[in-house]
Amino acid sequence: MSESVVSRSALNLRPSVFAELMPRIQALDERCIPLHIGDTYRLPPKAARQALREAALECADSTRFFQYTHPVGRPELLQALAAKLEADNGIHVTPDCLQMTCGATQALSAVAQTHLDPGDEVIVCCPYWPLIRGIIETVGGVVVYASLKEATEDPEGCLGSLVSDRTKAIYLANPNNPDGRLLNLDQARGLHRFASSKGLLLWSDEAYEHIVFDGREKVSLQSLDKDSERPCVVSVFTFSKSFGMAGLRIGYVAGPKDFMPSLRRVCNHQIYNLSDLVQGAALAALSMPPESYRAFLDTQRDDYQKARDLLATAFPKAEVAPGGAYLFLEFESVEQSWLALNAWLAEGLCSAPGEAFGPLHHHYLRLCFTAVAPERLEDAVAIVKRVRY
Amino acid sequence: MSESVVSRSALNLRPSVFAELMPRIQALDERCIPLHIGDTYRLPPKAARQALREAALECADSTRFFQYTHPVGRPELLQALAAKLEADNGIHVTPDCLQMTCGATQALSAVAQTHLDPGDEVIVCCPYWPLIRGIIETVGGVVVYASLKEATEDPEGCLGSLVSDRTKAIYLANPNNPDGRLLNLDQARGLHRFASSKGLLLWSDEAYEHIVFDGREKVSLQSLDKDSERPCVVSVFTFSKSFGMAGLRIGYVAGPKDFMPSLRRVCNHQIYNLSDLVQGAALAALSMPPESYRAFLDTQRDDYQKARDLLATAFPKAEVAPGGAYLFLEFESVEQSWLALNAWLAEGLCSAPGEAFGPLHHHYLRLCFTAVAPERLEDAVAIVKRVRY
Repeated sequence: MSESVVSRSALNLRPSVFAELMPRIQALDERCIPLHIGDTYRLPPKAARQALREAALECADSTRFFQYTHPVGRPELLQALAAKLEADNGIHVTPDCLQMTCGATQALSAVAQTHLDPGDEVIVCCPYWPLIRGIIETVGGVVVYASLKEATEDPEGCLGSLVSDRTKAIYLANPNNPDGRLLNLDQARGLHRFASSKGLLLWSDEAYEHIVFDGREKVSLQSLDKDSERPCVVSVFTFSKSFGMAGLRIGYVAGPKDFMPSLRRVCNHQIYNLSDLVQGAALAALSMPPESYRAFLDTQRDDYQKARDLLATAFPKAEVAPGGAYLFLEFESVEQSWLALNAWLAEGLCSAPGEAFGPLHHHYLRLCFTAVAPERLEDAVAIVKRVRY
Repeated sequence: MSESVVSRSALNLRPSVFAELMPRIQALDERCIPLHIGDTYRLPPKAARQALREAALECADSTRFFQYTHPVGRPELLQALAAKLEADNGIHVTPDCLQMTCGATQALSAVAQTHLDPGDEVIVCCPYWPLIRGIIETVGGVVVYASLKEATEDPEGCLGSLVSDRTKAIYLANPNNPDGRLLNLDQARGLHRFASSKGLLLWSDEAYEHIVFDGREKVSLQSLDKDSERPCVVSVFTFSKSFGMAGLRIGYVAGPKDFMPSLRRVCNHQIYNLSDLVQGAALAALSMPPESYRAFLDTQRDDYQKARDLLATAFPKAEVAPGGAYLFLEFESVEQSWLALNAWLAEGLCSAPGEAFGPLHHHYLRLCFTAVAPERLEDAVAIVKRVRY
């Protein structure tokens, strides 16, 4: 078969650096301490697990969860999300500006598909979530790299010269994956003003919205659309991190009134609908009494903050993350980072190589501090302290 | 916000004709007999429901179903699917040529994204499954229409003149949705030879693979790749129809060795992974003892054949479908078809308008005979017999 059997954009999707490491990681078996992925050792809220259980029991003799449902999402869930966005994010949207998705991944895939024509450019703030580059390139988009630090500190100075006729959007995660960077209100206003003045959309990836440490506040960019003539934010959220439901694959998009009808049609053609079984678990999480909802998120955040601080004991010189689920460690060189990765891997400790996070960070490694329970994380700390490289 | 906020391909996705009917259908409430969608009143195999139940119980205190899993799919499931494809479809593939998807919809969306560059053409055999046009157009592809009847009876004559420099694929469903048309071995060979000689891929949508009536045989196009120098079939399957699991959203792709690595990367960027909970239900269906597996499919097929024959009593002159889940009814004119649709809808009976199925079939209506239990289907028959239009 000739190479032409695959589209140019699909050919551009290179195997990930993770794919290369996979055989070595799989060979570790029980010894593996999987800090290379953004998983959690914690369980979802009891209400969500209970809802799954009840749904599964209902499955014994009801077709309800086996039939098609509305491609946009369950109406009660959209309603609950509108209330959550108002309360947790200061975002004011009606349910017709929401769309359920198969995790934040499909959310961003649909945003890219809805927004970009081939050749359109997206400024991606680095270091970035590993899949975003491929998501943009799959639909023929062109990635333009910027430093997230510089973009937040001086939007005009950093981003002004990067904007071309073909620029359509700026992507950033807040808190950021991998380095946990968080926008303060001034920075959010600066970015919002910049995007608005240039007619760009901000793609705001808020997967880690509830995982913010040291008593800091998180600002959702879309909350600034309220006072703006021209809404310019599409936000992506997920139940993966806030509610420990990554494996169930459920997320959602909130965006401007003129964007969402097209995004909904794109989603309709990407997966049709999202499993009602999974939507029920998400709805149960949102329907907890407010104090239980808050207590769940607070306890989880406190657990993760302790985990961050525990893992940080292995890296006394490293910056600790203000949010998110990772330590993002700088090394003197790319070679040094790979020496560490390999030495740790030989002992069972898996980390993610810096090149997954963009061209400016090849000399970094990412370690997830939420992936394993504290006892296991202590083993990781011991390995780092013991192993020379 | 200017129109440029949405990509050209997303703008091209028009609201479906279903969307227009939705408010009227929703207003029917309990009176609704929903023959406009391809659903089922039957339950999935008991083994699958049992697996869901056990998984939900495990969810009480285990993170297993809440963590990320492999983006390709569970290894045991891929193994089971390779065996199923060999046994049921005569398709010989190894697990590395398979990819799990969020239903057949995501399967075809991923196939289109993997295969097409903007401007590439796909010959779509009509009448067609309503989402295929949007799926192709979303990725910038161009749809070229052909008659499925003519394409199967005389591939060279019908399709020869439609192939251009930009043609990459031929899409067809077998059995077809909406008309149930089935390829016989000669027709399958003719199409396969034609595609192979032109260097095209056949996108073979086999959602209805197990729903074949009157003792007929079904031929999977990809089974012909075995004797071919140049594999030229990408097949799309789903658990939605064969196992009554549409709401769970699980399907898969089987394709050539040189196509699948790219398709896997596309899927990775579209949804990351498929819920393990859902994959477990699918695996349980495939893991039934062979005689139970066969009995489930046979009973289901017999039930559906009876349902077809029951609904057909309302349309003594109509052709009955050799496979699939629908009667596809020809009217004298587009106006006549809408008169019938509206008259039936006023009585609670919902049908799908012909224009959803392609430019050649606007004067048709589609009625699903598997969507409701026989008692309810009798009500539909009574409405058709009673109502004048």
